[in-house]
Amino acid sequence: MRLALVGTGLMGASVGLAAKRAGVDWVGGYDADDTAAGTALERGAVDEAGALGEVLAEADLAVVAAPVAALPLLVEDVLARAPESCTVTDVGSTKDWSLRFPGRFVGGHPVCGREARGPAHATADLFDGATWFLTPVTGTEPDRYRLVHGFVASLGAVPVAIDPRAHDRLIALTSHLPHALANLLVNQAGASRIEGHDPLSAAGGSLRDMTRVAGANPRIWVDIFLDNGPELIDALAEHRRRVEQLEQAVTARDGGYLARWIAEASENRRRVLAEAYPDPGELQRVIVNVPDRPGVLAGITQALGAERINIEDFELRHFSPERGGVLTMLVSGEAEAQRAAALLEAQGYGVSISPVLAE
Amino acid sequence: MRLALVGTGLMGASVGLAAKRAGVDWVGGYDADDTAAGTALERGAVDEAGALGEVLAEADLAVVAAPVAALPLLVEDVLARAPESCTVTDVGSTKDWSLRFPGRFVGGHPVCGREARGPAHATADLFDGATWFLTPVTGTEPDRYRLVHGFVASLGAVPVAIDPRAHDRLIALTSHLPHALANLLVNQAGASRIEGHDPLSAAGGSLRDMTRVAGANPRIWVDIFLDNGPELIDALAEHRRRVEQLEQAVTARDGGYLARWIAEASENRRRVLAEAYPDPGELQRVIVNVPDRPGVLAGITQALGAERINIEDFELRHFSPERGGVLTMLVSGEAEAQRAAALLEAQGYGVSISPVLAE
Repeated sequence: MRLALVGTGLMGASVGLAAKRAGVDWVGGYDADDTAAGTALERGAVDEAGALGEVLAEADLAVVAAPVAALPLLVEDVLARAPESCTVTDVGSTKDWSLRFPGRFVGGHPVCGREARGPAHATADLFDGATWFLTPVTGTEPDRYRLVHGFVASLGAVPVAIDPRAHDRLIALTSHLPHALANLLVNQAGASRIEGHDPLSAAGGSLRDMTRVAGANPRIWVDIFLDNGPELIDALAEHRRRVEQLEQAVTARDGGYLARWIAEASENRRRVLAEAYPDPGELQRVIVNVPDRPGVLAGITQALGAERINIEDFELRHFSPERGGVLTMLVSGEAEAQRAAALLEAQGYGVSISPVLAE
Repeated sequence: MRLALVGTGLMGASVGLAAKRAGVDWVGGYDADDTAAGTALERGAVDEAGALGEVLAEADLAVVAAPVAALPLLVEDVLARAPESCTVTDVGSTKDWSLRFPGRFVGGHPVCGREARGPAHATADLFDGATWFLTPVTGTEPDRYRLVHGFVASLGAVPVAIDPRAHDRLIALTSHLPHALANLLVNQAGASRIEGHDPLSAAGGSLRDMTRVAGANPRIWVDIFLDNGPELIDALAEHRRRVEQLEQAVTARDGGYLARWIAEASENRRRVLAEAYPDPGELQRVIVNVPDRPGVLAGITQALGAERINIEDFELRHFSPERGGVLTMLVSGEAEAQRAAALLEAQGYGVSISPVLAE
């Protein structure tokens, strides 16, 4: 198998490293930016860097890894230059445009959410266990699809076939809408002081969590929002309708509506968690205030490790040099949570435990 | 100083434990639920449990720690029963109603965001470094305010004075709106399958982050949403206007608007982070895929601790038994991030680094 990478940034170079790890014989790389191509070569993500025509000349598979806005034209160009035997795929985050390319092209989108850029940050394990959407259309040649499917699986990803338009609706809902809401929320909270108090300074944990992705790289995100514009607009309009319903319920002081709405959210949250944990209903949240001092983290993890406490999630978040931080762990089962609490209390920490999902 | 706790749940009992830690001589506790009062006694959060009139009889300060909806009537009752010398405060999360109580009452709201309930989970350090809003009004007796201010500081919290209505606007923006958006988002994403795909299963990191507080305890949150109804409605209406503006910009394919909007979000995000980190612009995100195996966490933290890498945030999040987890660390300074990366790479991990805030 000979692989051509068209674009050797973070994604392209990671595909190269993962492909080499999977035993691909030869990887050629082209990038409009010579430095990116050079770094990919140094890092062993490509065996050879060259002009576009050269790397495509004897390729069995070409992976186009370029910014979303450039993809349609670039894919067209690659299809024109590559030999008929070469299958072409891409790693763009919207797929509507791929409807125009039946035959040798199979659209792709690995969901791995790294914000790093450039081949210097590429890693062979970037796609391990990640969903990798594939968007074959009527007219996609079955052998081409099978080739890309097998290739993606060989990189460690989990290929999932989906219609291109359904893909874009799905991603609008699960990625683009959350990103938009993070920006909207942080901008609303930051828009004005309230009688001298800066809402952003008074921000509790929920605002901090919910704005984690706010302000993400504009060079990437303007394109993504525009490219998936119609689906994003639909998702935003539906969101607005739901906000209006909530306003009406609060105005009417409809406690029953709010209780049902929260119960529905709790059930949906359970479904989100069920992807990662076999039994989300068992999850307990263990919370500890910890001082801002070297060695605290290693001390806690060693003690828990020595007692073989099975920790699902582990998060130490800094609050301030004075306040130190808060450690939040998810542990499965109340007995296990109590064991963890006892260990931490023996180290002098105050511990609180609560179920992750309200009954 | 003699302290009366009216309500000995998580908050009341934590106030008791923190007060004992601060050297308060005597803490009396009343709870409508005898079991809660008994547990608070066992845990040493109160020295004596008794009827409401008894615990108030010789108190210098009474802290009312009951659900928001019950507060106005309960505070009125406590003011009527307690001796004239007794100052009264509370720990409720909305404060508009406290305008009705000048004189001996000083409204309070510690911001500590625990979801645990009941005195079994109370801890003495719950308020360490936390903001504790105090809402004196025209007519609040200055000595009473000074007493509560000093008391709150002695528990380890940072007292911040604010007008009650400004408090409710601030909390609507920084806590109630984020909670509402989390519920709205998870319910929209969970409302329907897209050509057979469950959006909640396809959820990336952003959706998971942004719905962390979704479905939080309905017994608490229905009251909070209703009690702060007018401020929440204003915040939701303003949010809706901002969503509509975004829809218009996307419809008009106005890339300039989107770029400015993201840049504003990035700047606001910087202000959120500036509370916890001296120099947020220096923060680097170091990301590593890790296997689901015991000892991994302790191994990594020990190695980083031995090299004295200064880690600001540390988050290990589980994805699935097959995929393992993703470790995300925030480290200050690129050189420090590179040191961390080199250490982890030496352990066989693939590492990616990116600035937390886009330039």
